[in-house]
Amino acid sequence: MSVAWTYDPVKSDMARVDGEIEEVARLAPAEMTEQLRHALQGGGKRVRPALTLLAGKFKRYNVGLLVSMAVGVELLHTATLVHDDTIDDAQIRRGKISIKQRWGNSNAVLIGDYLFASSARFVAETRNIRVIKLFAQTLMTICSGEIQESINAFGSDRQRYFQTIGDKTACLFAAATESGAVLANSPEDTVQALKEYGYNIGMSFQIIDDILDFVGQKETLGKPVASDLAQGVFTLPVILLLERPESTAVKAILKKNRKKGTQLLMEMVRNSSVIDECYEIAQGFSSRASAAIKNLPENPAHNCLDSLATYVTERRS
Amino acid sequence: MSVAWTYDPVKSDMARVDGEIEEVARLAPAEMTEQLRHALQGGGKRVRPALTLLAGKFKRYNVGLLVSMAVGVELLHTATLVHDDTIDDAQIRRGKISIKQRWGNSNAVLIGDYLFASSARFVAETRNIRVIKLFAQTLMTICSGEIQESINAFGSDRQRYFQTIGDKTACLFAAATESGAVLANSPEDTVQALKEYGYNIGMSFQIIDDILDFVGQKETLGKPVASDLAQGVFTLPVILLLERPESTAVKAILKKNRKKGTQLLMEMVRNSSVIDECYEIAQGFSSRASAAIKNLPENPAHNCLDSLATYVTERRS
Repeated sequence: MSVAWTYDPVKSDMARVDGEIEEVARLAPAEMTEQLRHALQGGGKRVRPALTLLAGKFKRYNVGLLVSMAVGVELLHTATLVHDDTIDDAQIRRGKISIKQRWGNSNAVLIGDYLFASSARFVAETRNIRVIKLFAQTLMTICSGEIQESINAFGSDRQRYFQTIGDKTACLFAAATESGAVLANSPEDTVQALKEYGYNIGMSFQIIDDILDFVGQKETLGKPVASDLAQGVFTLPVILLLERPESTAVKAILKKNRKKGTQLLMEMVRNSSVIDECYEIAQGFSSRASAAIKNLPENPAHNCLDSLATYVTERRS
Repeated sequence: MSVAWTYDPVKSDMARVDGEIEEVARLAPAEMTEQLRHALQGGGKRVRPALTLLAGKFKRYNVGLLVSMAVGVELLHTATLVHDDTIDDAQIRRGKISIKQRWGNSNAVLIGDYLFASSARFVAETRNIRVIKLFAQTLMTICSGEIQESINAFGSDRQRYFQTIGDKTACLFAAATESGAVLANSPEDTVQALKEYGYNIGMSFQIIDDILDFVGQKETLGKPVASDLAQGVFTLPVILLLERPESTAVKAILKKNRKKGTQLLMEMVRNSSVIDECYEIAQGFSSRASAAIKNLPENPAHNCLDSLATYVTERRS
């Protein structure tokens, strides 16, 4: 995240969230402590829990409930990352060796499961059936997105890409803001506005992630460049490139020699204007995010969400 | 399960449970249907959901809530089985090829996650915070049991064995009965009695499973004989054998040549009286299960639970 975005209106609540997350590792059975610390202190940006807290600031809220939900959201996110690494066979996560790589597949599956369970426990602490159901539904949607991604390997299009990242990523951002709004007893139109904000900011966030996978440096990315493409996952830059008439040749190469075609695609993406086009699309989602909440009252949380919508497209890692 | 045990008092409710479980596969994203059907129609005995329904028959109950919880319990169990197969690298489950073997590790991780999420959704349908929290806590305990099992490889003792199977297996049986009792608004002493019944029946069930792993036939087991031992998991028969003074030699062989030692252990278990001893220990847990509920009112559910306590130690598959 760009240093320009800070979540000042929820800074002290975020300290509580961080504290609770540390407790998860500390209170776990001794055999898991080290692995959980590794997963939870991974230098994540914690945007999702911040969104829950911010979305909870538009009505009378109980900070304790919001903190529980925010912790649940971050734990769910971390659980999916740990399992993703076993699914994608990723060796590096956030610049550090992945759980799967260091402790093996079996441990990664178990640590991910334990994080899901911990997440469910924190969400249950809210005692709010609507957000508990939302949590379960969100995990189902994330799994569905992951499955789509693996099925679309080496062949996707804009529509399928947006559907996949919507399920895989934006859905959890939407759940983060929706749950915050619900827990603050916001009226339904506020809940829907914040949910729409979350969904659109999540789309923007993922598109930028997919751009950075091509234009970023290994050091700031914390993982190899173009790692999605290497896995056969066609993200927006590749999809836009392949839509162009001049891509007929590379398509043919890709069919004959996947490795050579993939290499060529990476170079073409970097030397074309598709990256600019992707930025524009991400900015479109960010604008829709801000527009979704434009009728909500002015307050520090609102300003903070607006600034996130701007800065999310400017981040470099 | 022996054919002698039938859950007549909840037969029609179990048909609803089966129907809901079928719906999980039918309503899932198309990409998952086949894999979910494979996991869910695996010929499982569905003892756990039956326990939830039976434990709910001691007070005024709402069948819909009990059915939701029973489905949640069975889905949670199935999710852990699917992940277990990736953890143990098991090729066969319940006599069929495992998800992991047929669709690969990545898909098995995702299908397990989807089943966890579905499970959470059904549990949330109960709208009962206590059972929702119990569900989360149970999954945490199961993960802890799995981790212990892998850490104890090639070296366990009675105490650690009982702790491990308590966490890995009995805990979910206890959650099954406790949740049924809670949802029927039973008084706390009834809840605790049924929870204790569930825990002890789960212990008995797992010990018999571990016996059958040695004395069963591949065909009825639905998996290779002595598969735990092959994985380095020392279950009760092996632990009892290694406690005996005459096992000094095999211990030494085990240290030098694991494969040879394991082979020898298997033969020794089959030719010794440890299996009888294990049956006695399982019967002890079954007796404690029945004793835990002896003060509960006489009714068809009570009789059914008592007969399960007897027959669980007589099953041959």
